[in-house]
Amino acid sequence: MELSVYRNSFLSFLEENTKFTEPKSLYEPVSYILQLGGKRMRPLLALMSVDAFGKDYKLGLHAALAIEVFHNFTLLHDDIMDGAPLRRGKATVHEKWDVNTAILSGDAMMILANQCLEVYEGDIYKKLMQLFQKTALEVCEGQQYDMDFENRNDVSIPEYIEMIRLKTSVLVAAALKMGAIISDASEKDAEAMYQYGLNLGLAFQLQDDYLDAFGDPETFGKQVGGDIIENKKTFLYLKALENLEGSEKDQLLTLFTTTQENIDSKIEITKKIFIKSKAVNEIQQEIKNYTQKAFDVLEGVSISVSTKEDLIAFGHYLMGRKV
Amino acid sequence: MELSVYRNSFLSFLEENTKFTEPKSLYEPVSYILQLGGKRMRPLLALMSVDAFGKDYKLGLHAALAIEVFHNFTLLHDDIMDGAPLRRGKATVHEKWDVNTAILSGDAMMILANQCLEVYEGDIYKKLMQLFQKTALEVCEGQQYDMDFENRNDVSIPEYIEMIRLKTSVLVAAALKMGAIISDASEKDAEAMYQYGLNLGLAFQLQDDYLDAFGDPETFGKQVGGDIIENKKTFLYLKALENLEGSEKDQLLTLFTTTQENIDSKIEITKKIFIKSKAVNEIQQEIKNYTQKAFDVLEGVSISVSTKEDLIAFGHYLMGRKV
Repeated sequence: MELSVYRNSFLSFLEENTKFTEPKSLYEPVSYILQLGGKRMRPLLALMSVDAFGKDYKLGLHAALAIEVFHNFTLLHDDIMDGAPLRRGKATVHEKWDVNTAILSGDAMMILANQCLEVYEGDIYKKLMQLFQKTALEVCEGQQYDMDFENRNDVSIPEYIEMIRLKTSVLVAAALKMGAIISDASEKDAEAMYQYGLNLGLAFQLQDDYLDAFGDPETFGKQVGGDIIENKKTFLYLKALENLEGSEKDQLLTLFTTTQENIDSKIEITKKIFIKSKAVNEIQQEIKNYTQKAFDVLEGVSISVSTKEDLIAFGHYLMGRKV
Repeated sequence: MELSVYRNSFLSFLEENTKFTEPKSLYEPVSYILQLGGKRMRPLLALMSVDAFGKDYKLGLHAALAIEVFHNFTLLHDDIMDGAPLRRGKATVHEKWDVNTAILSGDAMMILANQCLEVYEGDIYKKLMQLFQKTALEVCEGQQYDMDFENRNDVSIPEYIEMIRLKTSVLVAAALKMGAIISDASEKDAEAMYQYGLNLGLAFQLQDDYLDAFGDPETFGKQVGGDIIENKKTFLYLKALENLEGSEKDQLLTLFTTTQENIDSKIEITKKIFIKSKAVNEIQQEIKNYTQKAFDVLEGVSISVSTKEDLIAFGHYLMGRKV
């Protein structure tokens, strides 16, 4: 099915199911952040997964909404923690309202997300909730590792991969597995969909790291070089440090620990180091590897060839994004 | 059964089930706040409720823990919003660590609370979760109303009662109803336990308002007069305003809207106004009314006379508290 069919269906459903009443001061920020837009990647994957197992994709709409509401809750609270002024070009909730409102509206969103799943019955409800809560806790752990890493100088590549697995990939994976659970797929197939999502999620996040430094400023949603400006220990940085020695390593360490007067020059020099150290080659290879792993996992799943092709096409669409 | 049996059993269970691993920075604040103590009123009521319906009270331990973890999550986030330095005489989480840690550890606690219920099966699991999520959202709404009221000068008594119903009473009520659900009690009996808790919770919160002004400084856990110092629009304040006219009303309004140099004198004058305006008589009457309503509701519940007596004794114990 065309992606636009899922997307339009999801957006209508989102619109219909996010009309809240009182207290306005609690629910207005919820509507606000949910209407800021975004790729809606996670809910689309949930719907595609229901469809893949031959069920009416609309059965997945409540789960898709649960995932999107939860995802936006994490953005809301993360923005407070990061002190971010903007989200998708608009004021963040704690800027537009205040920190207290942002904390409490976020809390409410986590509960609203859980309530979306109440439409499912019996065993399916419990399976969905268990997966959803496990995933939610992992996302919190990932966010904590991300914050912890800011104050550490010995973060390894495996630790970094584990952090992005928790912070980003498990929710993508859960979206796909929830679709499988709703379709009453076998445990083996549901787990394969999870692994497809997990690997696609890792590829997606690594590509985000890559594009943050090397993306097209015309189409990249955020400021190109943002991670470099903030001294973020991304895969590119950690890999460059691992590959470099002597004065070149020192230069990168200095760039990331001292205040640089000329930001543009800092970005340019850092990018050259990322290229020269082969960190760029290696991240591109990793992105390919995780994408391929995601596609390989699909091989064994009991879904039609054309559905597999759709999921592979979606992977290419995500990876081919210019933003 | 003796309250101490439930309490000791719950405290052991809490101790055993709050051993977390990594990341330490996420889970240490969770263990910290859960070990700060407190009356453990809500978990005890859940256990008493299971017992009341003739089941082994230990079947309620996971639900009791869910409720206590959720309650402590609300304290954690409320303390950030209130900028409170102390909780039960110890540093609050955002003071001991920082605001970001307090936000994220609180988020994790909400999820951990939900996971406590996963031990229950099938229909009982779903009923518990639905009640728990509905209640959780109501508690958020109550907190929002409480914050909204700070900036409003037209709060009515019914609005105030609705706020404390949401912020405090529904969780007490849910604890009792969850016990009934676990015991597979009839819907009618489960709802009666909910109403017992709701009325007891309202009486309890109104007594908290009363004790905050008129409690014994020797035994009251918090600073006596704290609500007066913070210009909180409690039942006493709102009722006094309702009952007063002319210069006496103006005096109270002035006390609560201008900076008072002498805090002790502000407290003393305000207390005299609360007494003279009959707000004190009326709050005492309301406390009695809600307590009696709670006891009346128990009449129709299919539990033994001795169990009803235990629940009534617990009500008297709560209301007779000197703290």
